[in-house]
Amino acid sequence: MTQKTWGGRFSGDTDNRVEAFTESISFDRRLYKDDIAASLAHANMLAEVGLLTGDEFKQIIVALYAIDEEIERGEFAFSVTLEDIHTHIEQALIARLGDVGRKLHTGRSRNDQVATDVKLWVRSAIDEVDGRLVEVQIALLAAAERDRDLILPGYTHLQRAQPILAAHYFLAYMEKFQRDRERLTDCRKRVNILPLGAAALAGTSLPIDRDSVRGRLGFDSLARNSLDASSDRDFVLEYVFALTVIALHLSGWAEEWVLWSTTEFGFLELPDAFCTGSSIMPHKKNPDVLELIRGKSARVAGALQQLLMLVKGLPLAYNRDLQEDKPALFDAHDTVAASLELAAPLVRESRFRKESIAARLEAGFLDATTLMEFLVLQGVPLRSAHEAVGKLVRLCEERRCRLADLPPEVYESVRPGLGSGVYNVLGVNNALQAFQSAGSTAPEEVEKQIGFWRKRLSEPERQARESEIPR
Amino acid sequence: MTQKTWGGRFSGDTDNRVEAFTESISFDRRLYKDDIAASLAHANMLAEVGLLTGDEFKQIIVALYAIDEEIERGEFAFSVTLEDIHTHIEQALIARLGDVGRKLHTGRSRNDQVATDVKLWVRSAIDEVDGRLVEVQIALLAAAERDRDLILPGYTHLQRAQPILAAHYFLAYMEKFQRDRERLTDCRKRVNILPLGAAALAGTSLPIDRDSVRGRLGFDSLARNSLDASSDRDFVLEYVFALTVIALHLSGWAEEWVLWSTTEFGFLELPDAFCTGSSIMPHKKNPDVLELIRGKSARVAGALQQLLMLVKGLPLAYNRDLQEDKPALFDAHDTVAASLELAAPLVRESRFRKESIAARLEAGFLDATTLMEFLVLQGVPLRSAHEAVGKLVRLCEERRCRLADLPPEVYESVRPGLGSGVYNVLGVNNALQAFQSAGSTAPEEVEKQIGFWRKRLSEPERQARESEIPR
Amino acid sequence: MTQKTWGGRFSGDTDNRVEAFTESISFDRRLYKDDIAASLAHANMLAEVGLLTGDEFKQIIVALYAIDEEIERGEFAFSVTLEDIHTHIEQALIARLGDVGRKLHTGRSRNDQVATDVKLWVRSAIDEVDGRLVEVQIALLAAAERDRDLILPGYTHLQRAQPILAAHYFLAYMEKFQRDRERLTDCRKRVNILPLGAAALAGTSLPIDRDSVRGRLGFDSLARNSLDASSDRDFVLEYVFALTVIALHLSGWAEEWVLWSTTEFGFLELPDAFCTGSSIMPHKKNPDVLELIRGKSARVAGALQQLLMLVKGLPLAYNRDLQEDKPALFDAHDTVAASLELAAPLVRESRFRKESIAARLEAGFLDATTLMEFLVLQGVPLRSAHEAVGKLVRLCEERRCRLADLPPEVYESVRPGLGSGVYNVLGVNNALQAFQSAGSTAPEEVEKQIGFWRKRLSEPERQARESEIPR
Amino acid sequence: MTQKTWGGRFSGDTDNRVEAFTESISFDRRLYKDDIAASLAHANMLAEVGLLTGDEFKQIIVALYAIDEEIERGEFAFSVTLEDIHTHIEQALIARLGDVGRKLHTGRSRNDQVATDVKLWVRSAIDEVDGRLVEVQIALLAAAERDRDLILPGYTHLQRAQPILAAHYFLAYMEKFQRDRERLTDCRKRVNILPLGAAALAGTSLPIDRDSVRGRLGFDSLARNSLDASSDRDFVLEYVFALTVIALHLSGWAEEWVLWSTTEFGFLELPDAFCTGSSIMPHKKNPDVLELIRGKSARVAGALQQLLMLVKGLPLAYNRDLQEDKPALFDAHDTVAASLELAAPLVRESRFRKESIAARLEAGFLDATTLMEFLVLQGVPLRSAHEAVGKLVRLCEERRCRLADLPPEVYESVRPGLGSGVYNVLGVNNALQAFQSAGSTAPEEVEKQIGFWRKRLSEPERQARESEIPR
Repeated sequence: MTQKTWGGRFSGDTDNRVEAFTESISFDRRLYKDDIAASLAHANMLAEVGLLTGDEFKQIIVALYAIDEEIERGEFAFSVTLEDIHTHIEQALIARLGDVGRKLHTGRSRNDQVATDVKLWVRSAIDEVDGRLVEVQIALLAAAERDRDLILPGYTHLQRAQPILAAHYFLAYMEKFQRDRERLTDCRKRVNILPLGAAALAGTSLPIDRDSVRGRLGFDSLARNSLDASSDRDFVLEYVFALTVIALHLSGWAEEWVLWSTTEFGFLELPDAFCTGSSIMPHKKNPDVLELIRGKSARVAGALQQLLMLVKGLPLAYNRDLQEDKPALFDAHDTVAASLELAAPLVRESRFRKESIAARLEAGFLDATTLMEFLVLQGVPLRSAHEAVGKLVRLCEERRCRLADLPPEVYESVRPGLGSGVYNVLGVNNALQAFQSAGSTAPEEVEKQIGFWRKRLSEPERQARESEIPR
Repeated sequence: MTQKTWGGRFSGDTDNRVEAFTESISFDRRLYKDDIAASLAHANMLAEVGLLTGDEFKQIIVALYAIDEEIERGEFAFSVTLEDIHTHIEQALIARLGDVGRKLHTGRSRNDQVATDVKLWVRSAIDEVDGRLVEVQIALLAAAERDRDLILPGYTHLQRAQPILAAHYFLAYMEKFQRDRERLTDCRKRVNILPLGAAALAGTSLPIDRDSVRGRLGFDSLARNSLDASSDRDFVLEYVFALTVIALHLSGWAEEWVLWSTTEFGFLELPDAFCTGSSIMPHKKNPDVLELIRGKSARVAGALQQLLMLVKGLPLAYNRDLQEDKPALFDAHDTVAASLELAAPLVRESRFRKESIAARLEAGFLDATTLMEFLVLQGVPLRSAHEAVGKLVRLCEERRCRLADLPPEVYESVRPGLGSGVYNVLGVNNALQAFQSAGSTAPEEVEKQIGFWRKRLSEPERQARESEIPR
Repeated sequence: MTQKTWGGRFSGDTDNRVEAFTESISFDRRLYKDDIAASLAHANMLAEVGLLTGDEFKQIIVALYAIDEEIERGEFAFSVTLEDIHTHIEQALIARLGDVGRKLHTGRSRNDQVATDVKLWVRSAIDEVDGRLVEVQIALLAAAERDRDLILPGYTHLQRAQPILAAHYFLAYMEKFQRDRERLTDCRKRVNILPLGAAALAGTSLPIDRDSVRGRLGFDSLARNSLDASSDRDFVLEYVFALTVIALHLSGWAEEWVLWSTTEFGFLELPDAFCTGSSIMPHKKNPDVLELIRGKSARVAGALQQLLMLVKGLPLAYNRDLQEDKPALFDAHDTVAASLELAAPLVRESRFRKESIAARLEAGFLDATTLMEFLVLQGVPLRSAHEAVGKLVRLCEERRCRLADLPPEVYESVRPGLGSGVYNVLGVNNALQAFQSAGSTAPEEVEKQIGFWRKRLSEPERQARESEIPR
Repeated sequence: MTQKTWGGRFSGDTDNRVEAFTESISFDRRLYKDDIAASLAHANMLAEVGLLTGDEFKQIIVALYAIDEEIERGEFAFSVTLEDIHTHIEQALIARLGDVGRKLHTGRSRNDQVATDVKLWVRSAIDEVDGRLVEVQIALLAAAERDRDLILPGYTHLQRAQPILAAHYFLAYMEKFQRDRERLTDCRKRVNILPLGAAALAGTSLPIDRDSVRGRLGFDSLARNSLDASSDRDFVLEYVFALTVIALHLSGWAEEWVLWSTTEFGFLELPDAFCTGSSIMPHKKNPDVLELIRGKSARVAGALQQLLMLVKGLPLAYNRDLQEDKPALFDAHDTVAASLELAAPLVRESRFRKESIAARLEAGFLDATTLMEFLVLQGVPLRSAHEAVGKLVRLCEERRCRLADLPPEVYESVRPGLGSGVYNVLGVNNALQAFQSAGSTAPEEVEKQIGFWRKRLSEPERQARESEIPR
């Protein structure tokens, strides 16, 4: 007799190629802990409502723990003929317990079971990624504190724009990752709603108690509609979207640091341990980790695109297409988790080449905008000040000099009386010191931001939340 | 002299083809109300901090209102030589006010200006889409109430599975759209943070008061880091993702109703006003609106993909690539808004073909699972009950009959004593009545869900929120 | 000493996490046969030009064959510390041959080596997929011949449109897969150009003979520009695009057959061996293979999207991002190959439910267009004929009858003289027989198409081409 | 009476919102020339087979030309109530000719009509883009000839790798665009097959002559199967894929030139006419055109993704979803055509900053690989030579000198006898001259490549092909 869960109405065996094509055990075995956790809560409830006797319940609990350990030890035999992790565990139970094992599936279907397993998995995954984001944030804060006085060229269009503090730069990414964390938190609310009890699609005629299961598994509430609960994959899409934005934030940072590590920029020294060499060019030290982080963002976005296309045009309720959600989900998560794992030490261990930066800091007219604003403070309308400074920059380019090198009479000719004070805002350091607006790169503003984050990151909020999770 | 905002340092004119290639006025003119609203708040603040005199401020306010009206009346001249909406409005101001107009741009850059404009626009867009979702929800609730007693076949794998109430079906989509609304609300929190004051990328040396602008424009807080604020497009990605999930929900529903409108299913009569015909086949009545709603989901997902790819690997801060965010954003919004606008009346005005549904309702063994659960209640282990019912189904297929048509002795042979009570759960109506679990299609459960939504949708929460918005 | 190919200029070891993050051996080991084939040809050439002695060459050949066998037997030890398949094989050679092994990499780089390996792999992959497409085409032809007389409803907008022969239906997919084969053939031309000899990016100062290698590996020509050759991944994109279109063709067919297998359509009986059941609903027979084929199209398109995003904005020449091309490439190929492998037997072994189809064939006015064209042949302008038949259809709907059931006087009232001949074109069979245009579903046209394909598919073109390949 | 083509069987008017939602005239009006060309050929054929009289035919021809001119002059009134361009033109014909106009649609459907129109449009679009690619190629060749002696650093991983000639660099992109042209040519073969005559989906019972139409419209052959012909959108996907690869090639080049225009690289001076400035930073000269070309690649890939997702899971034959193919198609084409139009003059008018390049050319050990190959020629095994040079590079980094600055005794210690000849290959110029492999950056190889392209691009192949097209 077949060990499949559904043999009764079939006259022939499944084609071997079909088994290989339709199996999910090669990837959903990863859910085994979640599947067993959900089965434990389900069995408990079945005993509570009398669908299992106390003795049957105990047998099932003991056997499920034993199966869990067997899988953990790597001694459990997996086979494509048993389709998926749910069938594997149920068959192992039946092999141990006979008819008692045949009762565990009472009042549930693989449709609500897999939705529950995946939600448990995603809930843990969110917490893991959130933790890794915190590690990156801690590294960013440390870097901001370490290089709080270093002045870098700031860019727009990759052209030198205005001077910024290195600390200000690091805190820009802090903000991006903070928004990522908030998106994860928002996503988690929608993950943490229990589908189990939706059964195949319509609920069940058996007297199950969904709220008992909910409490045991730490879900916030019950899914209200069984048709929706068994077909819903929004939470997978939303989590993978949140991962994609993280990956894209990382891709921009990686691009930047690839640039900063070039001979031409010369801003950054990456640790040897995070670079690799060339098989043919003995002098090369390549920023491979950064390049891969950048490239892998495409992988995560590809997974999202797959998921969006997968659910397009699917009628209610469960369709087998949905099985394809897991490889994309797992791959996106693993990719982002691994990228974050390396981002933290890279931020921590890379070092600015301060001499090299300083040597060319005055190039590129980083003080031009401050000069313009200085004119505005003297009463020149903004647009006229802009025009005037534009012409001074052209003059400097002709003379191959900096704005600070122009003689007072040039400034006097722009506006009488300018010649004396203007040199106080010229030069990159003066320009940097002149900033004052909230959220700007002004030293005292950056100090405030550092203080904010130092306090924020020391709060034990995350640990607290994690301790609530019953797994 | 060029009317561009940046002519000073350039020696030649811009190439005509370049103007046509780089212009955004053809699409960002749509932001004119947002741009003017932000400029009003900005001017107010400049006057407060003394960067404008009271008289200059009044002139600017009057002129901005006049420009707003001119655009509204369609009398404003747009030109690609003026690049974007910001330049158009500033140049119109200068044309009216001369030097006073040249002062408005003080302490801001187009980089923070456009980020602010787009955030204002997205905030309104979210509220509009949320309102349209509510309209669809109201239509779903009405349909659920209207067809609360109608029994439909429920499907998994598009094979007949178990009976469901039509009301239960409508409420499944209610849940999906509710999650969409929650995602919009979460997104809105991140939209509603003010970037203005970030200036080009690093803030400004002028004594601006960002909090004054924040209050006037109804933002919740200030963006903390200028580099982040001027480069951040997360909110565009997140909004378009939320739109994509809405579009995908609609695509599944549209697919389903395309099926239900076929000769073969015969479940649904679409209103003539929502169908079109064929240029060659005179008998056709095609569900074009549903097909287009389904097809347009690809358009929204394509816009998302564009945005994800657009920001990949961009270094800080603003890069001109980001200009391409707006066509995708606008198109995704318009597409979803139009689809929702038609979904509501389609739900309201389509009618079930009850006779046609009833005529084939007993086909497909919709009561098989209830029979199996009945066996479980008699003490048969689930897996054994499953096997037994599977064999009965095969028997029925051979005899071309329904489960209810099998004689008592067949049931007795499955399990002695079964023959008498079993007919109480057989047949689709009996099977439907047997459901009892929370969130199931059981009539009393569905009634509870209807009650929940009736209360929920009558709450004036949305109107309240909209009234807070100062625009 | 490190076994990496590039240790010399590095002062520290690679971080363990970096090794795990940057390794490709877990997936590029799949290229081992291609890598060894390319190394054999390379070594041969090195001997020809004197960079290896005859003896060194023999040692290398023998060792490479031994390594090949060791891998094939599963006895080769893989390790992430050795990065990739190239390093593994080179290190195994050095372990066997010492200094002689250290010479194999002369005049090449991993950059051109991997491009060559992947091209060899893709060339084989194209031939494999082409072969599987031929198998599906053979199955389609057999089905067309088997069901050449069966009339099916043809659909547009999923509404019944006009009658078609089942054979005509099968041959529509024949055309789609034929275009797929043509795209593969076109792609193969661009694959079959040898990059080896581009070295790292600029060529080499060593006296290599690229044309010798080209001949041995069966490439058509040499890549003309080393910078292009080492950075080019167009062929990966193009192959995965061709796979995506195949997958999309399959998705449409799968969707159609999922519909045709429903209770409602009732057109098709799928073989039990290609269906699976439900864990909770004992009566279910689900078209899982078709659903997965449909769902997996998203996976292939996701891989394409990943690849497109991956190469966006990469400067010349090789960047490590490109390593990410292989998982996407392999996954897309495997997915399509597996789907095609199951499509062929599904086409072969599924059976139409002829009675069920016939029972409802007259529903849906499949003859309306033929009637309209009959009016046109009587001299009624097309648009007027369309209008007239539209009204007759409304009349039938009111009377709940078919067009053939309307009495002669109704037709006479449309156009005098019509009443007699019109019944010769009414009814689905008459309507089908009336077709006559080239490429239509007219029986004689379909017969011609069958003849064309019978001849086309018996030509030994493919086998011939495969025999040219030296691998 | 409605002017729609299909009113007869409908009892009510179409909802206004539905007209706005389903219309395509706002974008498919662009097909008017193609639609009229196809109608002219169709009318001609109808006259040949007797479905139109000679007089009717003449009236139709005259009227179609008049309509064409009216549209061209901008005097034609478009309205969403008339759905699409086909209906507009047919109704204009009927307005002019009455019953004669009602005959034009004989033997065709909008399904095959729109497929034919779009194929005609894509055929022209391919030729236009091919022409623009040739212009870019001509500009690349001119640049290669102009800067044939300029040595640039070549990069892998954006780290300095080996020296290359600027001409070699330009010819790398020449190859990429040549492959793009070949893909267009291959795509064009599949475009140039006539669908007209497929009618709605199954052909027609009228005695049409498809081959006559084929000849007049310049198609190569007839689509063999009507079901396939009316549902096929492969050619749209394939064309947009080809466009996407072009856009990606441009994105890589644009990224590179954005980098080369930075203060840090300082390689390239872009023409002022192709840059824009900043509204707040008066010194900025931004490479906006390059950034937009890079960013717009995402737009083209987004269009492709939309199209792939659009056709996923669509059953045969025509479904209204397919109407959404045109906005994506047109947008992708326009975007790539505009990008190419600007790429050509950018290549032509930008200038290398030779002094700035030369000033840092010796940085980054561009000669290290040549040194290693020199050791190989002395008999050192490649891997040992690699190790040795790696150590020399470390020594140079410690001493802050170049390889050419190391004294002879250092080289002697690596390998006795090396000290004398080694200086002939050290230094960037020596290293460049040392290359010799086919396709390398060796001056004589690059000269060969220039010669090849000079000959290739002067061949009148393209003009010849264009002159065959009857439009």
